[in-house]
Amino acid sequence: MKKLINAVDDVLAQSLAGFGRAHADLVRVSADPAFVVRADGPRQGKVALVSGGGSGHEPLHAGYVGKGMLDAACPGAVFTSPTPDQMLAAAGAVDGGAGVLFVVKNYEGDLMNFEMAAEMLETPHATVLTNDDVAVEDSTYTTGRRGVAGTVVVEKIAGSAAESGADLDACQALGERVNEATRSMGVALTSCTVPAAGSPTFTLAEDEMELGIGIHGEPGRARVPLMPADAVAETCLDAILNDLGAKGGDDLLLLVNGMGATPLMELYLLFDAAARILDGRNLKIARRLVGNYCTSLDMAGCSLTVTRLDPETTRLWDAPVHTAALRW
Amino acid sequence: MKKLINAVDDVLAQSLAGFGRAHADLVRVSADPAFVVRADGPRQGKVALVSGGGSGHEPLHAGYVGKGMLDAACPGAVFTSPTPDQMLAAAGAVDGGAGVLFVVKNYEGDLMNFEMAAEMLETPHATVLTNDDVAVEDSTYTTGRRGVAGTVVVEKIAGSAAESGADLDACQALGERVNEATRSMGVALTSCTVPAAGSPTFTLAEDEMELGIGIHGEPGRARVPLMPADAVAETCLDAILNDLGAKGGDDLLLLVNGMGATPLMELYLLFDAAARILDGRNLKIARRLVGNYCTSLDMAGCSLTVTRLDPETTRLWDAPVHTAALRW
Repeated sequence: MKKLINAVDDVLAQSLAGFGRAHADLVRVSADPAFVVRADGPRQGKVALVSGGGSGHEPLHAGYVGKGMLDAACPGAVFTSPTPDQMLAAAGAVDGGAGVLFVVKNYEGDLMNFEMAAEMLETPHATVLTNDDVAVEDSTYTTGRRGVAGTVVVEKIAGSAAESGADLDACQALGERVNEATRSMGVALTSCTVPAAGSPTFTLAEDEMELGIGIHGEPGRARVPLMPADAVAETCLDAILNDLGAKGGDDLLLLVNGMGATPLMELYLLFDAAARILDGRNLKIARRLVGNYCTSLDMAGCSLTVTRLDPETTRLWDAPVHTAALRW
Repeated sequence: MKKLINAVDDVLAQSLAGFGRAHADLVRVSADPAFVVRADGPRQGKVALVSGGGSGHEPLHAGYVGKGMLDAACPGAVFTSPTPDQMLAAAGAVDGGAGVLFVVKNYEGDLMNFEMAAEMLETPHATVLTNDDVAVEDSTYTTGRRGVAGTVVVEKIAGSAAESGADLDACQALGERVNEATRSMGVALTSCTVPAAGSPTFTLAEDEMELGIGIHGEPGRARVPLMPADAVAETCLDAILNDLGAKGGDDLLLLVNGMGATPLMELYLLFDAAARILDGRNLKIARRLVGNYCTSLDMAGCSLTVTRLDPETTRLWDAPVHTAALRW
C-alpha cells in the first residue's frame, strides 16, 4: 500500500486536523467526537443542515461545511458510518432553534446511526435520504439504491434554501425533490485501497473496467472491457436519462465527478463527451461542475450525475456558497 | 494503459473543448492554434499575462485564466512545449496595449519557444522565468532548476498586480520577486503514464518513492524507501527552508499540492504534518492552499511549496481571483 500517511490509525484524526487548520476561516473541528462545524455558527433561527458518512469520499462532506451549504459534517472512519454520538454532538453544536435537517446517503450503517441520533435528538428534526445511483437496486451495503455524488447537489440546494430562511419542512421537501430529480452512475478503472485493509478492495485486469461502481468499491452492473470515454459517457447517460425520464428541452445540471485518482484532463474530456451526447438529445446543460466532488480514496474512475432543474432549484444552485470545496 | 479517453491523438483537443464548454462564462478556447483566453478580454490598458507549457499539469495553466490571474494560456501536447505560433496568437488576442508578460516554467523547450515568440512579438513584452524546484540543479529537460507548483503563486500575485493596473516593468519585477521568494520540492509514489507512450514513464517498487520528483517524472534526488508523511514533510521542508533562508517570524504561504492521483485526505494529512513542523520552527503559515494545482497526469505523490510573503505580496495574494481552479 502506497499512501502519504503516518500510522493507519491516525489517518482520520491527522487529516481532519489539517483540514481544520487549512480552513480555520470557515470551519471548526472537534476531534472527539469527530465533527466539523461552520466557524460562524450556530445561526439563530436558521435550519441547521447536518450530514456525514464514512471518510474517504473527500471533499464530501466536510468540504461542504460553510455558508450556503452544510452547518456540520460527521466523518466516520474510512468507509465506515459515523456514530450517533458524533451526529448528536454536531447537531447540538449547530442547532439554531429552527430544527436540524440530516442529509444521509442511503447505506444501512449510516441510516441506522442517523436514525438512532434522530431518536435521541430533542429538537425538531427531519431527514433527507439520497439514493441517486441508478447502477444497481440493492447493493453490498444498501437496501435500495446507493447515495453517491448527487448528494452534493442535494446539500447545495437544500443548504441554500436554509441559508435564505426556509423552514425545516421546506428544506426537507426541497432536498427530497432534488434527490428525486437526480441520477448518477460511475465507472472504476482501478480499485481503491482502504488504509486499514492495506491492499486493493478488488482487482481489475489491465483491459477491464467496472461499470456502475459504488463509491466504496461495491460491484456495479458488470465488469466490461475498457471502453473509450465516449462510450462510458453514452452508457452512463443512457441509464441516467432513461431512469430520470429526461425529455427534450429539459434544463439539466451535469456533474462530472472524479473518483480521486483521475486527472482533470480526463474529466474535462468526459464532460465534452457527455455534452455532445446531451446536445444530440436536445437536452440543455444549464449548469455544470467538473472535478473531484465525491471520491473513493485513490480509485481511478468517474461518475456522471444529472439533476433536472426547475427555476427554484436553479436559483438556489446559483446562490452564493462559501465552503472549502465549493465557492461562488 | 487505463485512461478515460477516446483516441490518444484527440486527448488534448477534446479535453480543451470540454474545458471551454464547462467554463464558457470565464474563457474562450481557440482550437487551432490551441490557446485559452479570458472571456472578458482583451482589456485595454492592462498588462496581459500569458503562460503555457505542456499539458498534463492541469489545472495549470488554463485553469488560471480569468480575472486577477492569467489573460491567456497555451497548452502544448502532453509534457511537450507549446509552439511559438500558439504563444503569438494568444498574445495577440489578449494584448490591451500595455504590454505582454510571459510566465514561463524553466524547461528548455518552453524557454526556446517562448523566446522565439517574444522575438516575433511587436508589442512591448517581458518574461518571468519560474525555477522554484530545489530538488536538483540541472535536470532532464532543464539547465538550472525546474519550474513547478510555485508557478501558481507567481501567476496569482503578478496577475493581481496586472489587474490592479501595475505596468509591465512592475509586473515583471513582482513576478521575479515572488519566484525568488518561492521554493518547492515533491515526491512520487507512482509514475505517471503519458497517453502517447502508453506505459508508465518509470517504475517504483511497492516499497519505494522518488524524492524530488519532477512534474514530468524526471528523476529527483534519490529513490528511497517509502517514508511516513511526517518524514516526507520534514525532508521537503528542510530542503525548501534551508534554500530559502527562512527565519523565525517569517510569514509564509504554504501550498500542499497533489500530483494528480493523491486523495485529498492525504493532502490534508500532509498539510497537518507540514504545519506541525513549521510551528516547531516558529514559522507562521500566513496563507495556505491544499489541493491539485500543478499535477503530473495520474502520478500519486505531492509537492510542498513555500513562498516568503511581504505585505505587498500578501495583499496581492488576497485580491479577488475568478478562474476555473482558483476563486475568491
